[in-house]
Formats: sequence, structure tokens, C-alpha cells
Amino acid sequence: MSHQENLTYYVAQFVDELYQSGIKDVVISPGSRSTPLALTFAEHEHINHWVNLDERSSAFFALGMAKEQQRPVALLCTSGTATANYFPAIIEAFYSRVPLVVLTADRPHELRDVGAPQSINQLKMYGDYVKWFHEMTIPEATIQALSYARSIASRAVAKAESENSGPVHLNFPLREPLTPDFSLPNIWGRSSADTYHHHIAGERKLDSNQVNQILTQIKDGKRGLLICGPQTDLDVKQSIFTLAKHWNIPVLADPLSQLRAGKHNKGLLIECYDSILKSEQIRNQLKPDFIIRFGAMPVSKPYMFFIKENPDVPHFVVESYEGYREPTLHQTKYVYSDPSHFCAQCVEHNQGMEMDPVWTNMWVRMNDLVKAQWLEEESEKVTEGHAVTEIKDAMKDQHILFTGNSMPVRDVDTFFTSTEHDVQIMGNRGANGIDGIVSSAIGAASHGKKVTLLIGDLSFYHDLNGLLVAKQYGIDLTVVLINNNGGGIFSFLPQAKEPKHFEVLFGTPLDLEFSKVVDMYGGHHVQVESRQHLRQKLEHAYEQGGIHVLEVQTNREENASWHRNEWQQIETKLLQIIGEES
Amino acid sequence: MSHQENLTYYVAQFVDELYQSGIKDVVISPGSRSTPLALTFAEHEHINHWVNLDERSSAFFALGMAKEQQRPVALLCTSGTATANYFPAIIEAFYSRVPLVVLTADRPHELRDVGAPQSINQLKMYGDYVKWFHEMTIPEATIQALSYARSIASRAVAKAESENSGPVHLNFPLREPLTPDFSLPNIWGRSSADTYHHHIAGERKLDSNQVNQILTQIKDGKRGLLICGPQTDLDVKQSIFTLAKHWNIPVLADPLSQLRAGKHNKGLLIECYDSILKSEQIRNQLKPDFIIRFGAMPVSKPYMFFIKENPDVPHFVVESYEGYREPTLHQTKYVYSDPSHFCAQCVEHNQGMEMDPVWTNMWVRMNDLVKAQWLEEESEKVTEGHAVTEIKDAMKDQHILFTGNSMPVRDVDTFFTSTEHDVQIMGNRGANGIDGIVSSAIGAASHGKKVTLLIGDLSFYHDLNGLLVAKQYGIDLTVVLINNNGGGIFSFLPQAKEPKHFEVLFGTPLDLEFSKVVDMYGGHHVQVESRQHLRQKLEHAYEQGGIHVLEVQTNREENASWHRNEWQQIETKLLQIIGEES
Repeated sequence: MSHQENLTYYVAQFVDELYQSGIKDVVISPGSRSTPLALTFAEHEHINHWVNLDERSSAFFALGMAKEQQRPVALLCTSGTATANYFPAIIEAFYSRVPLVVLTADRPHELRDVGAPQSINQLKMYGDYVKWFHEMTIPEATIQALSYARSIASRAVAKAESENSGPVHLNFPLREPLTPDFSLPNIWGRSSADTYHHHIAGERKLDSNQVNQILTQIKDGKRGLLICGPQTDLDVKQSIFTLAKHWNIPVLADPLSQLRAGKHNKGLLIECYDSILKSEQIRNQLKPDFIIRFGAMPVSKPYMFFIKENPDVPHFVVESYEGYREPTLHQTKYVYSDPSHFCAQCVEHNQGMEMDPVWTNMWVRMNDLVKAQWLEEESEKVTEGHAVTEIKDAMKDQHILFTGNSMPVRDVDTFFTSTEHDVQIMGNRGANGIDGIVSSAIGAASHGKKVTLLIGDLSFYHDLNGLLVAKQYGIDLTVVLINNNGGGIFSFLPQAKEPKHFEVLFGTPLDLEFSKVVDMYGGHHVQVESRQHLRQKLEHAYEQGGIHVLEVQTNREENASWHRNEWQQIETKLLQIIGEES
Repeated sequence: MSHQENLTYYVAQFVDELYQSGIKDVVISPGSRSTPLALTFAEHEHINHWVNLDERSSAFFALGMAKEQQRPVALLCTSGTATANYFPAIIEAFYSRVPLVVLTADRPHELRDVGAPQSINQLKMYGDYVKWFHEMTIPEATIQALSYARSIASRAVAKAESENSGPVHLNFPLREPLTPDFSLPNIWGRSSADTYHHHIAGERKLDSNQVNQILTQIKDGKRGLLICGPQTDLDVKQSIFTLAKHWNIPVLADPLSQLRAGKHNKGLLIECYDSILKSEQIRNQLKPDFIIRFGAMPVSKPYMFFIKENPDVPHFVVESYEGYREPTLHQTKYVYSDPSHFCAQCVEHNQGMEMDPVWTNMWVRMNDLVKAQWLEEESEKVTEGHAVTEIKDAMKDQHILFTGNSMPVRDVDTFFTSTEHDVQIMGNRGANGIDGIVSSAIGAASHGKKVTLLIGDLSFYHDLNGLLVAKQYGIDLTVVLINNNGGGIFSFLPQAKEPKHFEVLFGTPLDLEFSKVVDMYGGHHVQVESRQHLRQKLEHAYEQGGIHVLEVQTNREENASWHRNEWQQIETKLLQIIGEES
């Protein structure tokens, strides 16, 4: 077999097996060494290839796409520091359990560590942040090598998807010449649509004894709480509310829990627990009898304090497979079971369990009060909170809100109360970086969903390069840009009391006219002057398509002090309710 | 001692020892967890702190600064994916031997791997790409802890600088609260200006026997060559030419060798060897008797073929400490000695050694011919080559040319022939990525040198964020932007013959009006229409200061075909010279 035959058949069968295993999209960054894979992906009829120059943006773009599509997405780049640009998104994917199949082209062994150009050590370069690493053999077209190529492809996709999903890394040493020959006969090989390996993976389910063991610990509890942190399983929503109804138990729902949106009965939904639990005095009045959490740790810091202050309360954390996502380090009972199945078993095994209606009613009243307080603001001025409510009201079914980290997700937590619309709320909450947010939002929009991105100016600047792929592929994105000219969250932290270096080190004002760069990427930019203006522009953006950046200028100090003022009022009113219900 | 006392003294003494050990600059990316170090750096009277938001750009900025300043620069960021953004520049620093002291703030141990926000595993996260990793203890102010903090600081700087320089990584777990108290007495501790540890490091020097061993192998050689690849030691230039004069031996000089610029005698300087060696027929006529290389492997691919085709020629590679930078894998004699000292010993030990004047003269004639050929082009049109010559003629003493990878460095190799001016030519040639180039050029300009950056549109796009720090700190940068709307180098590679996917996968046109983003960063953008226009604009930019982007639009296919045409003419004329001299 010639070099070119070895190369062509091996790569083609590898790529085809990725497709057979479920890969429908690959994000490619240009380069020379990755040529065989790049050209083969482009030739494959059924895989969409997206060319994205900046590898850091590309990886976050793939991550957003994989989150929205709920299936693995492949990444391909050339050798050298291109591979290192993937590192931030890979770490985010690892912690937020998003399946990525990372393919890095590499110099062949004889060109490693000898001062050859663009040659770096790519073996296990992502360390513990990938679920699996494998270095491929040099391409060959023997029967064994082709089976091997298909086997690895199939396994890589399965590994990325299975159990707690995450990224996997395959490294491809490739020798020149690098161009495949697509005129060779039957390069795609197998005609069967079967994947090479099959994966029939059972979910984890508790048996009756285990369920009873759990319920015995909580059956006398009258002041129980269910809480759902960030998670993406849409079945879980129905299961949790069914259980909640049976137990008449409050359901605290993180903004990224997917529980705040949809047509389900929201009588027990408590979205405003962050505001409710802010005051220590109030937390002391709300000591629970047990807590059951689904999903990751919620964003709410008051909620974390609440847990910390109740170390003796039975605390259950439900995970589908495994995990230790409990940062207060108090005794925790980890339940490893498919969450929907667990909820159903709780309903089935314990017909009589019910919370004290006074407890539940108090939570509902407090929630309603906080909601009313936040909605009270009559003025047309667009505060960071009102940006959220306008978005909530403008979004329609199948829309996605993608939230930046730092302040935006906290504003969404506070202000994105429930909606009847079937919408998803997403974010990169694995590692909560300010990097790659624009790219991930565009990835989430890549298959046609309307995405609204709520983001601050620092995060927007960080990933400005991400806009290129939206321009090149005509992907619609509506950005609500909260420009407080610097790091807004720091105004809430103790650092704000150190004025001497604050502005330089934490404030970090950018003083950039974003309209210019938005224009360069073919987007439309507008300064939003009022709530009504924002609403109009959102609806216009959704209708028109394209890239729209709706910039809301706010003042960091004003925002922080307004928040503090509101929370004081809320605290007073909540104490009143608690007094009445006691 | 209180938490705050522990924190304040420990961090202050660590930071002060960095300064005492030679750190004068730190590049800080904003965050909360890094607060103690950030505030302490800002408080320290003698360390310049540069705040740079995008961590990827920050690290490349620090790298460029360290290259130009020829001393280690520190980096500081917060926990989470911020740290991962440093990875590309760390890898570049590792391979190009640039000293960086990377400081990453971290969550404390109890917040690791438990789903706490912004907490990732930072231990040894840069793998084999740092010379040294150390995780610091939680801050304390005991005598032992303060000695420890100083000891580590001192050692980290020394390790970054010593032998083959490179990056080191220190990870700082920090507990809240994070704000130091600078009103505490004597926080900086030691009054002595001594570093904690002293490092009296001898250079490697051969003894007489070793030198004779080498010279014995080459003493009968009449057709010898010296070659200098990328390197930054300015003493080496003088030493090499002194040796060359004694042996009357041609000196092939890579553009980043620093040998092409300055007031030294250039009679034996052969800059155009890339063009000379392009033709296999010509290479066959130029078989050498021995080759001695200083510095890394040159960018020239024809030169690599030349080495590959002469496996039996004694081939010496001189390194100051250690290394294996020889990618053809033929038998190589590695000489581990300070290169200047080695040159002096060769002069001293071997008075009679001299090349055949016919050989040397032939190289000089060929070099002159090629130089004349490239300069022949009369038209005012700005080709990629003429951009280089205009820059060369406009640059003055103490200027720096920073060259992008891919096509720019190859154009500089071909067209940046010698200059009397005392200028440096720099690039990121450790891993040759297209990332971070703008930031590194700005880093090289950060201490006042006039830097001209020659860069293509893809690399420019990749690091647009890098312009922010130039705007914020008023750093001058002149960019000659070669916009051929895509990946120019690929037009020279075999991939260009595959038109079907070429434009999407390799051409990758951006179709961006860079003037818009340049304007956003407060820079001046101009389309350059002719050689004279370019010259004018360069001189204007140098005089005015600020960010200037001089965009030259070229056509990839035209450029590639013009090159091919020129090389054919050159080949014909060179064969003639060889015929005459034989």
C-alpha cells in the first residue's frame, strides 16, 4: 500500500466511524498538519464542518453547540500552540460534563523534541481534564489498522458521552505528504450503519431497600426542601414537580436548573431563595428538617451559607453516576441514581409523606413578596435587573438565554423568575470563567435556536473574536451587553473598600466603543436608553436575525447601592411574614 | 497572628523577594482570588504592574517583554480557566527559552474538587512545559514561613533564568478574607538588598582537549560553513564574525540570528542562503566539508533539505547548556559550551585553518546575486517582499522588527538582508503559533523601544485583543499588516492543488475591515497603496507614536506565482556562477 492509500483509508474510516457513533458536527481550525483530517471531514457527506480560526473560541463554540445539541461535537486543530488554545474550554467541558471529542494533529515521532518547527509535546497535554487520552498510530490501511481506527473512534465518542459526559483527546501523528486521495475506491469502508462497538448502558437505579433507607431518615420531616441546581435533563423537571406535589414541598430552583420555565404548575416553585436567604437573621428562622438537591451547586451564595449553618440537617445530593459536588464539606448523603427514577420511587414508596403546610405556605408567600418587590420599580431606566426581566418577557418558546458568569448569572438568579415559555437557560458554570462566553452562546445558536446572550463588558471583550463565526455562518445572536465599564462584581466584594488600587486592579475600565468592533463583524449595535427601548430592540433583533448588540450602560456603584437598598427592604418585609406564619 | 497578618506579611515578603531577585514587571489579570498578590504588587514601590484583561494576551505580552528586557517577567491571574489561558504562551516560552514566573491564585484545599465555584485542579497543570512547579503553603507569618516564602521566590526567579531559561509555575492557595493590611509595620521585612539565595553560576567551557578533538575533525575541511539560527545573545555576533574572519568562512545567518544587523563587517555574511539552496540541483553542487551551527534550527526549509542530503558531513551544533535541536536526526556532534567562548577557543587553537577562497568567494557572489535580484523590482506596487525592504530601510538604531510566523518570517528571511542599523529581529519561534503575536510585539515595545510588527491578517485577527494593553498604557506599535485575506502560506503547499475545499479549509478568508477594530483601540489605520506610501507612513508612525496599522493588501496566488518566477530566474543565474567558480 502506498503512503497515500494508508493515509486516505485510515483517516476516512476513522472519520466515518465518528459519524456512525453520533458525531454530526466538527469545528476545524485551519492548519497544515491537520490536512488529512480536515479534508476528510469536508468530504464526508454527513458531517457539518465549521471552520473557526481562533482555537480558543472554536473550543468554546463547540462546547456551546454540544450543550444545546445534547450530543458530542468534535474539534480539530493543527500541531503546536493551537492545541493549547483549547485548554480553557476543555477544562470547562470537564467540570460541566459536556462531551467533546478533541482531535489534535501532531508531528510524527521523529520530529518530536528535536527543534523541528511547530512541534510540541502533545501527549496527555490536557492532564486530568480529559476523561480519556489516546495517541493514534501512524496511518495504515491494513485490516487490523482500519478496525483499530474505527474502534478508537467509536470508543472516543462513547467515552465522551457516557456517565458523566466530558472531553476526550485523540492525538494524531501524521507524516507528510498530507493530502488524501478521495478518488480511491470505497474509502469509507463499511456499508453498515452500525457503530463499531455497541454501548447498551443501564442507568443507575436504587433498589427498594436503598430507597426506604433514605425515606426512613426523613419521613418525620415537616420542613423539607427540594433544591435543583444547574442541570440540563429536561425529564428531571417533570419528575421533581411530581414529587413536590406529593410532598407539598417547596422547590428551590437555580436559574440554570431548567425548572423556572415551561407550562408546568409552578405553585411550589421558589425562584427567589437567593434574596430570601440573604439575611442571616432570616436564615436562622428557616431551619429545615432535610434537604434533597438535584444538579450541581446553585450559584446563590446565601444558599451556601444556609447549608453551612445547618450541618446537622440530613442533606442528600442526587447524581446520575458519581460526583462530590458539595463544597460545604458537611456530612452529605450522595445518592447515585438516575434522578427521575429516584423521584418516582420516592413517590411510590411513601404515599403519606407531607410537609407542614405552614412551612410551605411561608416559602410561597416570601417568594411572592420578593418577586413583587423586584417588579415594583416603575421607572423606565434600565438597571441590570430590568435588563433581565425585559429579556424574560421578550423571549418565546424554544429560545435560549445564555448567561455570562460574574454578575449576569447572579442577576438572572435574582430577576429571571418563572415564565410560561418553553425556554432554556444556559451558562458555562463548570469553571465560571469570563472566557469564551460569546463563542459558547453562538455555538448554542448554531443549529437555529434563538439565543439571547446576557453578558458584561469584560467578558464581551475577552471573547470578541467569537463573533467571527457568527458572521461567517450567518448565525443569529442577540447580545444584551451590560456595560458598567469594568468588573462590576468587585463592587460587591470587600476589595471595594480599598479605593487606592481598586479602579486599576478591579474596576479595570475598558473605555471601548464596542459599536466599532460589532460593526466590523457585520452586527448591529445600539445603545439602549430605556426599558421600552430594550424591549423593542429585542423583538426587532429576534425578528430580523443576524448579530445584534443591545448595549445597556450602567453604573457599578449605583447598581451595588441600589441592590443593597432593595435587600434591606426585602429583609424587613420577610421578617414580617415569618413572624406571622410562626 | 491574625489571618490578615499572616496573609499580609507572607505575600509582601514573597513579592519583595521577587523584586530583590530581579523581577521588575508583573502582568496582572483581574480577579478576586488573586487579590492579595495583586494589591501587594501594586503597593510595592519598585515593581511595575501592568493590568491586562485577556490572560492569553497577557501571557504573550509578558513573553515579549521578557524577550526584549532579557530578564524574567511575572504573571498573575485568578483561579479557574484564567490559568488555562496562559498555556499557549507558556509552551512558547518553554521552547524559545524565555523566562516567565507564572503565579496562579487558587482556591484553598478544602474548596478543591467539591463543586465549589471557579475551582479547578491547578497542580502541575502545565505539565512538562514549566521548568519547575511548586504549590505554596497557605499564608503564614512565622519566621519559618517568611523564610520559606522568600526562598521560593528567589529560587523561582533563578530557575526561570538559569541555564536554558523558561517558565516556572507557583500556585497559591488562598483563603478568604483576601485583603491585606498595608498599615501593618514593616511588611516588606528584610532591609538588605540581597536576594535570599545567591546564584553564582559558571558557564560551560570546553577544555583544550575537547576543542582539539573538534578541530581535528575539521582541520582539513576547505568547504566549511558556519550557520547561526535564531538566538538573542548579542555577544555571539561579534565572536562568530571574528572566527569567520580567521577561517575566511561563509556565515549563513537566519533572520532571527541578530547577525544581519549592525555595524560589523559583513563581507562573509550570507543572508540569502534560503534562496540559494532552494534548488536541489544547486544544493548538489554545494556539498560542504563541515557545518557548525549556533542557535536554534533556522526557519529555512531548503537549509533543512541541505542538511538532510549531507548526512556524512561533520555537523556541529553549539548550545550554551544542553539541547537536541537537530530535526534531521543525522549524526550530530553537540557542543555544550558558551558559544562566544567556544569561538574564541577555535581562533586561539587553530591559527592556520582557512577555507578555500574559491568556495567562500562563490558563496559571496551567489549571495550578492540574489540580493540584487530581489532588489531589482522597480515597480511601486507593494509586494509582500517589498514590505520587508521598506521596513528595513525605515528602521533606525534600537528599533525592533517583530515578525509573525507563517509567511512573514519567511519573507523576512528572504528580503531582510543586511542593515547597518543596530536593530533586533524577534519572533515567537519556539512553537511558531499564529497566536499571541500582537501581544508579544507590544510586550517588546513596553519599555520604550520602537517596534514594527510584520504580520498577516489571520495572526492579526487571532490576537486583536492584544491591542488593548497598548491603548491603555500608551505603548507605541507600528503594524505592517499583510492582508491577503486568508492563510497565505497554504498557497505554497501541496494542499493548494486541491481546489475543492481549499478556500474554506485553508484559504479561510476573513473579509474583515480591520480599520474598525483598530479605531476602537485608538489606533490609526491606513491602506498602503505603494512602496513610497508605505515608507512615508512608517516614518510618520515612528515619529508620531501610538498604534499605527499600515495595511498592505496582496493577492495570495499572485504572490506565490511571483515567488516561483523569481526563484526560477535565480536558479539559472546561480548555476552560472557555480559553473564559473568550479
